[in-house]
Amino acid sequence: MTPLSICRLALLSGQSNRSATGSSFDNVTGISPEILAALAAANSGSQSSYGADPLTARVSRRLAEIFEHEVAVFPVATGTAANALALATLVPPWGVVYCHHEAHIVVDECGAPEFYAGGAKLVGIAAPHGKICAGDLAPLLPGGKGVVHHMQPAAISLTQASEAGTVYRADEIAALAELARRHALGLHVDGARFANAVAHLGCAPADITWRAGIDVLSFGATKNGAAAAEAVIFFDRAKAADFEFRRKRGGHLLSKMRFLSAQLDAYLDNDLWLRNARHANAMATRLAGGLAGITGVHLRHPVEANEVFVEMPNPLIEALFAKGFSFYRWDGERGNCVRLVTTFDTAPSDVDALLVTARSVNRDG
Amino acid sequence: MTPLSICRLALLSGQSNRSATGSSFDNVTGISPEILAALAAANSGSQSSYGADPLTARVSRRLAEIFEHEVAVFPVATGTAANALALATLVPPWGVVYCHHEAHIVVDECGAPEFYAGGAKLVGIAAPHGKICAGDLAPLLPGGKGVVHHMQPAAISLTQASEAGTVYRADEIAALAELARRHALGLHVDGARFANAVAHLGCAPADITWRAGIDVLSFGATKNGAAAAEAVIFFDRAKAADFEFRRKRGGHLLSKMRFLSAQLDAYLDNDLWLRNARHANAMATRLAGGLAGITGVHLRHPVEANEVFVEMPNPLIEALFAKGFSFYRWDGERGNCVRLVTTFDTAPSDVDALLVTARSVNRDG
Amino acid sequence: MTPLSICRLALLSGQSNRSATGSSFDNVTGISPEILAALAAANSGSQSSYGADPLTARVSRRLAEIFEHEVAVFPVATGTAANALALATLVPPWGVVYCHHEAHIVVDECGAPEFYAGGAKLVGIAAPHGKICAGDLAPLLPGGKGVVHHMQPAAISLTQASEAGTVYRADEIAALAELARRHALGLHVDGARFANAVAHLGCAPADITWRAGIDVLSFGATKNGAAAAEAVIFFDRAKAADFEFRRKRGGHLLSKMRFLSAQLDAYLDNDLWLRNARHANAMATRLAGGLAGITGVHLRHPVEANEVFVEMPNPLIEALFAKGFSFYRWDGERGNCVRLVTTFDTAPSDVDALLVTARSVNRDG
Amino acid sequence: MTPLSICRLALLSGQSNRSATGSSFDNVTGISPEILAALAAANSGSQSSYGADPLTARVSRRLAEIFEHEVAVFPVATGTAANALALATLVPPWGVVYCHHEAHIVVDECGAPEFYAGGAKLVGIAAPHGKICAGDLAPLLPGGKGVVHHMQPAAISLTQASEAGTVYRADEIAALAELARRHALGLHVDGARFANAVAHLGCAPADITWRAGIDVLSFGATKNGAAAAEAVIFFDRAKAADFEFRRKRGGHLLSKMRFLSAQLDAYLDNDLWLRNARHANAMATRLAGGLAGITGVHLRHPVEANEVFVEMPNPLIEALFAKGFSFYRWDGERGNCVRLVTTFDTAPSDVDALLVTARSVNRDG
Repeated sequence: MTPLSICRLALLSGQSNRSATGSSFDNVTGISPEILAALAAANSGSQSSYGADPLTARVSRRLAEIFEHEVAVFPVATGTAANALALATLVPPWGVVYCHHEAHIVVDECGAPEFYAGGAKLVGIAAPHGKICAGDLAPLLPGGKGVVHHMQPAAISLTQASEAGTVYRADEIAALAELARRHALGLHVDGARFANAVAHLGCAPADITWRAGIDVLSFGATKNGAAAAEAVIFFDRAKAADFEFRRKRGGHLLSKMRFLSAQLDAYLDNDLWLRNARHANAMATRLAGGLAGITGVHLRHPVEANEVFVEMPNPLIEALFAKGFSFYRWDGERGNCVRLVTTFDTAPSDVDALLVTARSVNRDG
Repeated sequence: MTPLSICRLALLSGQSNRSATGSSFDNVTGISPEILAALAAANSGSQSSYGADPLTARVSRRLAEIFEHEVAVFPVATGTAANALALATLVPPWGVVYCHHEAHIVVDECGAPEFYAGGAKLVGIAAPHGKICAGDLAPLLPGGKGVVHHMQPAAISLTQASEAGTVYRADEIAALAELARRHALGLHVDGARFANAVAHLGCAPADITWRAGIDVLSFGATKNGAAAAEAVIFFDRAKAADFEFRRKRGGHLLSKMRFLSAQLDAYLDNDLWLRNARHANAMATRLAGGLAGITGVHLRHPVEANEVFVEMPNPLIEALFAKGFSFYRWDGERGNCVRLVTTFDTAPSDVDALLVTARSVNRDG
Repeated sequence: MTPLSICRLALLSGQSNRSATGSSFDNVTGISPEILAALAAANSGSQSSYGADPLTARVSRRLAEIFEHEVAVFPVATGTAANALALATLVPPWGVVYCHHEAHIVVDECGAPEFYAGGAKLVGIAAPHGKICAGDLAPLLPGGKGVVHHMQPAAISLTQASEAGTVYRADEIAALAELARRHALGLHVDGARFANAVAHLGCAPADITWRAGIDVLSFGATKNGAAAAEAVIFFDRAKAADFEFRRKRGGHLLSKMRFLSAQLDAYLDNDLWLRNARHANAMATRLAGGLAGITGVHLRHPVEANEVFVEMPNPLIEALFAKGFSFYRWDGERGNCVRLVTTFDTAPSDVDALLVTARSVNRDG
Repeated sequence: MTPLSICRLALLSGQSNRSATGSSFDNVTGISPEILAALAAANSGSQSSYGADPLTARVSRRLAEIFEHEVAVFPVATGTAANALALATLVPPWGVVYCHHEAHIVVDECGAPEFYAGGAKLVGIAAPHGKICAGDLAPLLPGGKGVVHHMQPAAISLTQASEAGTVYRADEIAALAELARRHALGLHVDGARFANAVAHLGCAPADITWRAGIDVLSFGATKNGAAAAEAVIFFDRAKAADFEFRRKRGGHLLSKMRFLSAQLDAYLDNDLWLRNARHANAMATRLAGGLAGITGVHLRHPVEANEVFVEMPNPLIEALFAKGFSFYRWDGERGNCVRLVTTFDTAPSDVDALLVTARSVNRDG
C-alpha cells in the first residue's frame, strides 16, 4: 500500500467543478523559490505605497517589452478580481459577455463578473474541448444589439489555456476578434494559465494577444508559482481609463503593493514564467503519454497545457483510490473522468509512480 | 544639509488626505521579520486551497482565544475589503452607516462600502479628535426608521484607533452600543490600528469589542507588520452567514490562502501584534513629548496610538523641508498641520534626529 | 386590396423577440372602458399620497378575497418592475433564478432582474411549449448549493400563461414547488397574463398560487385592459418585509397612487379581469380553430390563452403581407412562424376577416 | 368648530420631512381636467407600444420648441425615477453628486440615485433658503479629482423651484455651471416644480436650462396636474446615449406609453403647465401676504413658488389644530414652522378662509 504523499495528492487530484471545496490543484502548490526570494528582497527599507514604487514600475516596463506593445498594467491578488475588474471595464451593466459554458468566470467565481459589472450577463456556450469558435458565436449575433428590451452584446471572453487544458491558436483568436470587431464587442482573455499557452505554442505573447485582436488580458501567476499575483493588462491604455477607480473600490489596491509587484517581477525575470509553464506542460505530456498506453484509458481532450482529463474504467478509478491515491471525479460522483493537473514543481518521479501504479492495477484487473 | 534617508521619510511624512498618492505612512514600511519568516515556512509541501488549510484553522482558534469568544474569521488582503465586506453584511442596500466624517471608509475607500453594500449611504459626523460619541449620534436617530422615503439607519462604524490617533475607551463604545441596540443598528469597528488601541488601553481585546457590544471587527495587520493581511471577525457567527459568498464574489478569497493565514498566524504568535503596536505607540509618545517642548509647536490631538498631528509655525515647516525632510501638510498646501506616523520599525534614533533638527531650527529661527 | 385597420394590425401582428420595437401586441390596445371610467371617478377631491388612500386599501382587500388568503399587495406601473422587484426580494445578489429560456425576465427586460437583485443570474431552460417541468430542473439541483465558488440556486420563476400561450396546471406547479421546497428555493410567477390562465383553467386563483406552493405573484393588468397597472402579491407577508424599500428606491412608488389603484380596483370589480381574459382566450380559440383547418398551416403550441403561434407556408405569409396585413415573423426574418395575439377588445369579425383572407389566399395559391 | 374639508386639508398641510407618510401636499391633488380628458382621448384604437407612438413623438417636438433646442426626451412615471436615471447617466458608480442638504434626491428617495448609479454618493450642502451657490461649492472642489482613494466629483444637482419654495435665477445657475465646467461636472436640475420656477421668473425655459449650462432636466408634471408623468430632458443628445437601456432595466419603460405621453402632451398644450403654475404661485403669494400681516407670524423663506414656510407662535399652531385644521410641523413635533403648499386647484376662497381663521385666532389669543 503506497502511503499518500502530499506531492502525489497534488499531482493526482482531479476535481469536480461541483466539489465541496472548489480547489484547483495548481492552487495547492506553494511558491516558486525565486518568487519567495524576491519577497524577502523587497523587504528592505520603506517604499511608496499603493503602487508608486519602483518594483511596480519595473513590472510594467517588463510587460511592455514582453508583449512588444504599450500596456496599462494593474496588479491584483486574485484571478477572480482580475477577470471581474477587466470585464467590468469592458461592458456596461446591461452588457452580455459570451464565453465557454465551462469558463471559470461563469462557473467558479460566484458571480464576481456580474457584481463588478453591475448586473451584466454571462452567456455560456457549449463547445468541444473547452474552446469556442467564431462559428459557435456568429449565430447569436447581433443578438438584439440596439434593441432596448434586450441586454446588449458587449464582450467575448476566452480562457487561455482553456478549462479543458487546450490552447487557442492565433488564427482562432483572430477569427473571434473579427467577429468582435464587426459587432463592437470587447475581447478579453482569462489567462490564469496564459504561460502554459505561450509555452505550448512557442509563439510571441503578442501573437495571441493584441496582434490577434485582444483588448485586455488577465495575466495569471498564482497557478504557476506566485503566492497571490495576477496582472490585468490593457493593450489600449484609453480603455483602462477608469480601471484604477474600479480596483480601489473593489478593495483590490494593495497598500504595500511592492510585495505583489515583487512576485510578478521575479515571475517575469529570466523567463521564470515560461520555464515554470514548460515544465508543467512537459509533465502533463509525460503523464498523458503514459496513460494513453493503458487499455481502457482515454484522454478526453488534447493535452496542450498542464491539465489531463482522463476517462478510465471505474474499476481502475476505484483501485487507485484503494491504493491511496486521492482525487475527485470530474463529472460528479458517478462519472469516470478525472482531472490531473501538473505544476511547476511536479517531479517526473511522481508522474512515473502514478503510471506504474496504473499499469499494475490495470494488468492485475 | 542632511541627506534624506528612507527611514526618515517614513517617520516624518505626515500626509494630506487629499494628496495625490494617498499613501498612509504605516504602509510604506515593510514586513516584520517574524512574518516574513512565516511566509517562507508556509511554503513547504501542498496544502488545501481556499482556506481549508491548517494555518487558516489555527488563526481562527488563536483569535477565539485572544478574544475569549466564539468567532467567525475571514482573512482578506486589504483593509478596504475588510471594511466594505463587513459593512455589506450588516446593512441593506438602502441602509445608512454613521461614522466620523474623517473615517477611512467615508474618505479613503473610493466608495468601496457603497459598492459592496449595493448603494448604502455613509453619513460622516464631525466630532473632535476623530471620535464620535453617543451624544453626537442620538439627535440623528431614529432617522426616519420605518419611513419608506428615507434610507434606513442600519449601522455605526467606529475607527479604533481613530484617524486622529486617539482611542475609544470601553465605556465610550458601550454608550454607542446602547444607542445601536435601541435603534437596531449593527456596530462595526474599523480596526486597521486595533493593535495600537489595545496596546494603549492595556485592556483585554474583548473589553473593547463584544463585551462592549461590537458585532464585527476589521482586525488589521498590514499597517502593523504584515505584507497584506486583515481579518474580518464576527462575534456572532449567525450574522456572518452569507459573508463567504460576498468575499468570493468580491474576488477576495485567495486560492493559496495559507500565505495570507501564515501572516496572521505569525502576527498573533507570541503577542507580536501587541509588541509591534506597543513599540510604535512608544515612538509616537517620544516624538510627541519632544515636539511639545518646542515653542510654537502644538499637538492637535491627544497622542494615544501611533499618529502625531502637529501644528507648527510655517517657517519651521519650511525649514524642515529645506533640511531635507519630506512630508505633506495635513490641511492642504497652506495648512500648518502635519501628520507623523510611527511604526513597528521606527528607531528611537530616528525620532531623536527629528527632534534635534526641529529644536535647532526653532532656536535659530 | 384590404385597407389595413389599426385593429387588424393589433390582432394579426405576431412579433419576433428580436424585433426592433419589441412591442407585444396586447400592449398596443387601449384601456378597458370600465378602467378609464374608474380613473375619472378617482379624480374627485384630495387623497393621501403614496398608497395611504382608500382605493389602495380596497385593492388589497379585494385581492385577499379573490385569493382566499392573506396577501401583501404592492401596485406598480410595469410588469418588468413587478418581476424584478419580486425576484430581488426572493434571492440574494449571488442567487440563481431558473426559468424557461424564452421567459420575459430573461429575454425582454434588459437585465432588470439582474439589476434589482444586485447581480443575480437567470438560467434559462429550454423546454417544449414554454413550460418547464420538475423533470427539467431536477438534474440541475442542488447546483452547488453551499459551495462558495458557485452562484447559489435561489428561486424558480414560471410564466403563467407562458410565453408560448400555454398554461401550467396546478399539479405541474405543485411538482415544481415540491422541488423548490426540497432545495429551499423561492417560487415566483410572472403573471402578466395570469387572468388568461385562470380563465382557461376555470380554477380558483388560489389553486395555482399559494395552494400549489407559489410565494409571490406578479399579477398583471396592463395587457388585459389597464393603462399601466400590475400588482406584486406576496402570500407570506413576512417575505415582503423589505419590498417597500426596494419599490421606493426603484422609483416605483407612485405619489398619486390612487390612479394606479383605481385601475386595479376596476379591473377586479365584477370580475372584469376574468371577463376580459375569457374574451381574449375565446378569440384565440376561434382564430386557432379556423387556421388549423387550412392546408399547410400548423399550430406550434397548444392554444390555451390569448396567443396563437402559427407556422404557415412562406407564400401564405408573403401573400398576407401583400394583402396589407402587417406582422413580424417569430423566428426571425427567414422563419415561417408568426405570433398572433388576441385581446379583450378583439372583435370576432376581425378574427373572421383574417380567416377569410387566409383561406382565400391558400385556395388561390 | 370649522369642519375640515378635504380641500382645506390639502392647502394647509405642511409636512415634516420626517413624517410617517412622507406625503407632499401637491401630491394629494388630483388630475387637471385637461389632462384627464387627454387620457380618454388617447384611448381610441391601437398604437405602437413602448414609445413608438405619435403622441410620444409630439411631446418631444413640443419640448424642443418650448426649450428652443434639440432635446432627447424620456417620459417616466415618477420624479424619483427621473432624477435617479438622469443622475446615473451623468456620473460613474464612484461619482459624487453635490446638492442642497434638503434636496429630495438626498432626503426623500430612499437611495434611488445611489441605486441607479451603482453606488454613487450624494453630498448635501447646507445653505440658506434651499439654494446652493457657487461660493458654497467652490471650497469643496476639486475634491480629490483624479486621486484613486476618493470618490470622484461628478455632478451638481439643483432643485428648481427649491425645496424651500425659492427659485434659482439664470445668473446663479450660470455661476454654478461655470464651476461645473471648470471641474468637468455634469449639471442636473430636479424640476419637480420647474413650471413654478418659470412662472415666477417669467423667463424663457431656455434661460434657466441649456443657456445657463444645464445638461439634463427632470421636468415634472405630477405635482402640477398630471396623474403620473415626468420627462427627463437632455439638451445634448450624445449624453443620453445609454439612457434608454437604463430606463428599460429600471422597469420604467411603459408599454402603453401613449397614456403617459398623453398627459405630457396636454400639460404642454396651450401653456397648461404655466397656467397651472401661475395659479399655484399666485395662491401662495396671496397666502403669504395675508400671513405676513399677522403678529408673531414670520415667513422663513422668500415665497417665490407654491410653497409657504411659516413660523408662528405655538399657541397659534395649537389653535389652528383645535379649529380643525390639520397639518404637520416642518421641524418635527416641537418646531413652530409649518409648510403650506398651494396647487393648480387651490381656490382663493380656501386661502382666505385660512387667513380669516388665523387672524381671528391671533386677535383672540
